[in-house]
Amino acid sequence: GVAPAVHAQAAVRWRLASSFPKSLDTIFGSAEVFSKAVKDMSGGKFEVSVHAAGELMPAFGVVDGVQNGTVEMAHTAPYYFFGKNEAFAIGGAIPFGMNSRQLTAWMVDGNGQKLMREFYAQYNIIDFIGGNTGAQMGGWFRKEIKSPDDIKGLKFRVGGFAGKVIERMGGVPQNIPGGEIYQALEKGTIDAAEWIGPYDDQKLGINKVAPFYYYPGWWEGSLNLSFYVNDKAFNGLSAENKAIIKAASHEAHVTTQARYDSRNPGALKQLVGAKTKVLPFPQSVMDASFKASQEVFAELDAKNPDWKKIHADYVNFQRDQVLWFRFAEGTFDNFMQRQKL
Amino acid sequence: GVAPAVHAQAAVRWRLASSFPKSLDTIFGSAEVFSKAVKDMSGGKFEVSVHAAGELMPAFGVVDGVQNGTVEMAHTAPYYFFGKNEAFAIGGAIPFGMNSRQLTAWMVDGNGQKLMREFYAQYNIIDFIGGNTGAQMGGWFRKEIKSPDDIKGLKFRVGGFAGKVIERMGGVPQNIPGGEIYQALEKGTIDAAEWIGPYDDQKLGINKVAPFYYYPGWWEGSLNLSFYVNDKAFNGLSAENKAIIKAASHEAHVTTQARYDSRNPGALKQLVGAKTKVLPFPQSVMDASFKASQEVFAELDAKNPDWKKIHADYVNFQRDQVLWFRFAEGTFDNFMQRQKL
Repeated sequence: GVAPAVHAQAAVRWRLASSFPKSLDTIFGSAEVFSKAVKDMSGGKFEVSVHAAGELMPAFGVVDGVQNGTVEMAHTAPYYFFGKNEAFAIGGAIPFGMNSRQLTAWMVDGNGQKLMREFYAQYNIIDFIGGNTGAQMGGWFRKEIKSPDDIKGLKFRVGGFAGKVIERMGGVPQNIPGGEIYQALEKGTIDAAEWIGPYDDQKLGINKVAPFYYYPGWWEGSLNLSFYVNDKAFNGLSAENKAIIKAASHEAHVTTQARYDSRNPGALKQLVGAKTKVLPFPQSVMDASFKASQEVFAELDAKNPDWKKIHADYVNFQRDQVLWFRFAEGTFDNFMQRQKL
Repeated sequence: GVAPAVHAQAAVRWRLASSFPKSLDTIFGSAEVFSKAVKDMSGGKFEVSVHAAGELMPAFGVVDGVQNGTVEMAHTAPYYFFGKNEAFAIGGAIPFGMNSRQLTAWMVDGNGQKLMREFYAQYNIIDFIGGNTGAQMGGWFRKEIKSPDDIKGLKFRVGGFAGKVIERMGGVPQNIPGGEIYQALEKGTIDAAEWIGPYDDQKLGINKVAPFYYYPGWWEGSLNLSFYVNDKAFNGLSAENKAIIKAASHEAHVTTQARYDSRNPGALKQLVGAKTKVLPFPQSVMDASFKASQEVFAELDAKNPDWKKIHADYVNFQRDQVLWFRFAEGTFDNFMQRQKL
């Protein structure tokens, strides 16, 4: 008989633990785009099964999972692991950080990915870009915020790093899973809650219990999502599969930002139609938040050398980016915002 | 002896004609990133050789080249083919069009790629995203521009579509290859010339002969670059190689925008250090340009059904994008531009 074809490359089966629920189709979908691209490109010889938060491990257990090799991969928001080491946040979002394009530029053509990989090595992680949400909204408030005084005593559901800044401003940061926000606001257990942006926030129905929707979410001028890959698993791949992971992560990165940008406007219009009051944070609140953030950064510089090294490079890059974006990019955007299309 | 391994998949060798010279490492580099990713992912079984403008065919001959199957692929700026059909421009840049993220969102998650592919089918082309320059600068001028009157009689080296608008404003658009701009400005054959942005413009040395550098380039709020693939060649690929082309194009897309963003600020600082005067176009010039652009669009709506169909969808999408970007994104960017980092 005819000898069977010899396949030089054995089939590879990996598991990916997401930190997100399936209901967040944009952010969870990033891992699905990645997984499909890997499967399609390899003709099914490399498959990565995608598991929602809680399916294999808790949402915030994915770094341990990848570090220990329980799973080969995770898809997550790096700042969730701020409690392990504040430097994680720089790979995701820090208050008054870079916008989506700037942060991607730092990761891809600046020192960002190089520095983050040096840091991640202690967790056995190699990271790849995995989408960005763009600038987020500042969240939902039961009462209007008119000055920094209104932050004092405010029970605000807000993520780890931003919570540090809110605390310094006299607020009371709260850690509550997305699914419990509605009830906590309704009962008055909390006064305010931030989530992501119109498209995701609408799904939680928070607008019914907190009518004031503030912008911008200065703690997430953009949020870079990451694929974390266990380094031994990655190094065991063929050169082809390594390149496939890289390209698939780029496909997921573009697709996720595109989905957020494409889907947020319609959701915002619907929220406004349902009587949401969309308001900018007052200048005094923005200024006080910026000042408090700089103070937190200075404290971290003094106590965390990982943070200090990476953050110094980040801010140098950011300074040039913000300067450059003032010219063609910013002027063009601002002009367009005044036109009737 | 042992039977040799049977390779189910035959080697594929393609040629890609770029519309750009090698000296423009960012924009030409997009095809190189693409080619390397394809080669790496396929383990060398799929190779795409990249040829600079003029090597296989002229810069502006690449649509004919792909249409006729002379080459399997091209990398180009779609608006170069405005003369064939104005609808080409919508896939690249139109005056007062979408910014980089907005345009990518339209292509990837809106109707953009679907509509452009329907249009490109008549040229046997299937397109893939291939990078974006971001908002471009408005170019180099020998004299200051103080009002729309200063556009009258101005001999301005500017691309096809923008030229139509400049003409309507009383200017005299000129078509000159990049390599001849310096001499034409020095001799006074032209009064002004636009190219791309600081990083690319600096290479031409134009700042020595035209000191006024204006922004923004309202005719290119962003320029989407495209990979054009001959449809028969694409349809002849294995499913794996089709997926590889898609992911590699996304990798090139991210990398090219990141390189522009990362490299423009340093070049701008050097140009300013060399006494370039960086100035915004006066509001009156922006307003007159916007009005003239809308008039050109209305004329095209009346005479070109391809344009009308695609442009209508584009503007609908753009209207929502610009509205949404006013909130979190725009407010955040504008706040950051006022901070000392």
